[in-house]
Amino acid sequence: MDESINLVLFSGTDDKLQAAAVLAAGAAALGKPVNIFLQYWALDAFTKAKIDADHGLAAEAGPGGREAVDALQAAGQATWAETLRQAKDLGEVDIEACSLSMDLLHLEESDLDPLVDGVEGVTAFYLNAGEGRIVFI
Amino acid sequence: MDESINLVLFSGTDDKLQAAAVLAAGAAALGKPVNIFLQYWALDAFTKAKIDADHGLAAEAGPGGREAVDALQAAGQATWAETLRQAKDLGEVDIEACSLSMDLLHLEESDLDPLVDGVEGVTAFYLNAGEGRIVFI
Amino acid sequence: MDESINLVLFSGTDDKLQAAAVLAAGAAALGKPVNIFLQYWALDAFTKAKIDADHGLAAEAGPGGREAVDALQAAGQATWAETLRQAKDLGEVDIEACSLSMDLLHLEESDLDPLVDGVEGVTAFYLNAGEGRIVFI
Repeated sequence: MDESINLVLFSGTDDKLQAAAVLAAGAAALGKPVNIFLQYWALDAFTKAKIDADHGLAAEAGPGGREAVDALQAAGQATWAETLRQAKDLGEVDIEACSLSMDLLHLEESDLDPLVDGVEGVTAFYLNAGEGRIVFI
Repeated sequence: MDESINLVLFSGTDDKLQAAAVLAAGAAALGKPVNIFLQYWALDAFTKAKIDADHGLAAEAGPGGREAVDALQAAGQATWAETLRQAKDLGEVDIEACSLSMDLLHLEESDLDPLVDGVEGVTAFYLNAGEGRIVFI
Repeated sequence: MDESINLVLFSGTDDKLQAAAVLAAGAAALGKPVNIFLQYWALDAFTKAKIDADHGLAAEAGPGGREAVDALQAAGQATWAETLRQAKDLGEVDIEACSLSMDLLHLEESDLDPLVDGVEGVTAFYLNAGEGRIVFI
């Protein structure tokens, strides 16, 4: 059960990022190493400028979904960023920005929130993943 | 070839749920154990109140996509719920609701369609998955 | 490190297809066999009629995302179709259309771009995947 979990985050909406954070925290709690690779709109959500902003929900969520998520946050549920910070305290969680997506979004490493540990290419991601599972979110 | 297939269902649109049902049924037909974990909008689609409703399509489908899906259903193609019921007859398919998403959507176990076998947390999902593949849909 | 990477492509937007093409090319560069299985809107994007068209972006991309992607293409970045052609030159990349999705979209094999190597069912996809990773995009 110590096989790594490798999450490729593509989407930057709060619901998918929360689902990803829960999968990361659960894996960390079980002692599995977690590697997170940030692409496209997920990378955008991890910038200092945007990490605390409202990132919207998946298009299918609808007004009922918005209300449900707002109610949970009002009740003090941790945001996805807080959940990821806790997961890092709990276990081995490494978060890397995809270098191609950094170019796409004209980002420098100094633009990224400290949750992000570095920038790497896709082959480095595969090498870190080893034989572990890969999940695209 | 008896490694388990573990599907995390996040999206609740009919096209993604049909894709998930086809992956589950194919795995069951090959004798692979299938574990399905329902989060967010996918969980919402498995409630008694909504399982037979129209759940829409992914935002990108467009009017041509809507027509194509409607034509197939008019021609008698099984819905995703029917496909999953057949997959359960065919092999070992376990469907669990994510406990955090139950809270988010204010659901009780009695609100869920009988296709759902129970409610569990993410660590239980990982433990059931063992070393099997994890697919996020 | 020679375990196969198996990509189930569901989405047909240019951003997700580019993310998929990068994952395929990276795996091919590392000598990993890559199997791609085209469903729904991704299959639609691989038709001769549409492969060179604008396929839009994920709903969450917003106007800033559109500008970023347009700027990269204006700067000469390879499209996802070109990246996949290069990946095929680099390594072992097999692209198959899902037979159920062919029916859904009323497609014949002659409608598909030459990048697509054939048509198969989901059980054939699993058998080709062997024990390799499965990633749904």
